[in-house]
Amino acid sequence: MPHQSETRSISRRRALQLTGGLASAWILGCGATKPADEVPEIQYANHEILMLVYPRFTSLDLIGPQHVFALLGPEYKTRLVWKDRTEIVSDTGVPIRPTMTFSECRAKPTILFIPGGTDGTLAAMEDKQVRDFVADMGSQATYVTSVCTGSLVLGAAGLIRGYKATTHWLAMSVLEKFGAEATNQRVVVDRNRVTGAGVTAGIDFGLTLSALLKGDDYAQTMQLMMEYDPRPPFASGNPQVASAEAVELLTAMADPFLVDIDATLERIAAQ
Amino acid sequence: MPHQSETRSISRRRALQLTGGLASAWILGCGATKPADEVPEIQYANHEILMLVYPRFTSLDLIGPQHVFALLGPEYKTRLVWKDRTEIVSDTGVPIRPTMTFSECRAKPTILFIPGGTDGTLAAMEDKQVRDFVADMGSQATYVTSVCTGSLVLGAAGLIRGYKATTHWLAMSVLEKFGAEATNQRVVVDRNRVTGAGVTAGIDFGLTLSALLKGDDYAQTMQLMMEYDPRPPFASGNPQVASAEAVELLTAMADPFLVDIDATLERIAAQ
Repeated sequence: MPHQSETRSISRRRALQLTGGLASAWILGCGATKPADEVPEIQYANHEILMLVYPRFTSLDLIGPQHVFALLGPEYKTRLVWKDRTEIVSDTGVPIRPTMTFSECRAKPTILFIPGGTDGTLAAMEDKQVRDFVADMGSQATYVTSVCTGSLVLGAAGLIRGYKATTHWLAMSVLEKFGAEATNQRVVVDRNRVTGAGVTAGIDFGLTLSALLKGDDYAQTMQLMMEYDPRPPFASGNPQVASAEAVELLTAMADPFLVDIDATLERIAAQ
Repeated sequence: MPHQSETRSISRRRALQLTGGLASAWILGCGATKPADEVPEIQYANHEILMLVYPRFTSLDLIGPQHVFALLGPEYKTRLVWKDRTEIVSDTGVPIRPTMTFSECRAKPTILFIPGGTDGTLAAMEDKQVRDFVADMGSQATYVTSVCTGSLVLGAAGLIRGYKATTHWLAMSVLEKFGAEATNQRVVVDRNRVTGAGVTAGIDFGLTLSALLKGDDYAQTMQLMMEYDPRPPFASGNPQVASAEAVELLTAMADPFLVDIDATLERIAAQ
């Protein structure tokens, strides 16, 4: 008799006891943000998760971890953070609105997170206001984190010097410019720095961080809820297994980006 | 001498010849949408990809495939489609703006795609205007597709009757109510219906569809660019491998949702 209301009531209570966040997300919905042009009143949580957004960031870098973080429970709140609340368009054309401004962010966030991108990421790196915000929040955050080339923004803010870190495989050589130790792993945890590899690594990254915050049992239940049982249609996800032609092609395509990084770093040094 | 401009110029041309979309995305950026409140002039492409969005949809269901589709090349355009352009908030609190209205969609889209969710998905199913739009576009689309419980919206629009299909593992029993053959695979391709399992299956789904549209070589290069080399931190992604407690807990949590589905279907039948 699985659909009796008494059974449901017990299940619901038990679910809330065991995994408050997951249960509230599934049963009640976790979309607390109202669509509105006016500035909403902010209800701060014990654990603030600050996720930087910026023009032409890669939305999948953000949304993988954001999905995981949103299920951490009501004591955690995820924020999409930018200078203002003006709509931002991602590098694949997704219009997303920031939900919190730099000046509204409280001290000591639980997570500071930076997604990657290409030219948009370089523009964010070169922006002193962004670097100052990232450096300030990074100095206070419990975890300082990134996915893909988001680690370059951490690097430009001086936050990965002396740390092991990772990034998109095409940008791995850049990390040493920031004094970081480039580490070829899907997710790299070095003290409180947690960095993920390219784009889709955000899901592995998010689950790793959720286990650090709420324990393995919780993270495993989230993984089951997200049905994260990946079955890539091809063995082509890293340069060791992909075809030589694919590696050569993308390496050639990334070359102008690497040149632009050097030029950006020179301009930052001259600021 | 990898950074000589002549080398870059050759690489860029070769890249464009081989994989126009990937190259333009990487080098030029592919965010063509401008952030603006005014209705922009729509430039239709040969291949229109219509991705339904609706209040409280699951943003990761959408953004995984959207990332893949955005790299298909300049002859493809991805649209976030809703009744109007009013901002929508996802079930994890991400404010996203639709980029095209139902009435602006052209006939014969290449892909019709529906993301999943929970109560928001049921509200979309129950909305006759949504069902009519989905049924109309689905009858003309080259591929009729979904991820997660998005397949329930296809079902409510009569689009999976007599087809093999999949959905989130917790909702698998619902598919037969729509006359579909529930099929426990990560991605199910039956004629022109392509459905993905829960949430994170959207990446496997997107790469599968990109291979159907542009061939295996192209999809493999996309997979490498997205660094889709998943390393789940736990073996907990499906109910066969997860702990009995996690399966029991989520099954109990999903029970009210399954009851709500039945109630929604009854109300739809009475409309």
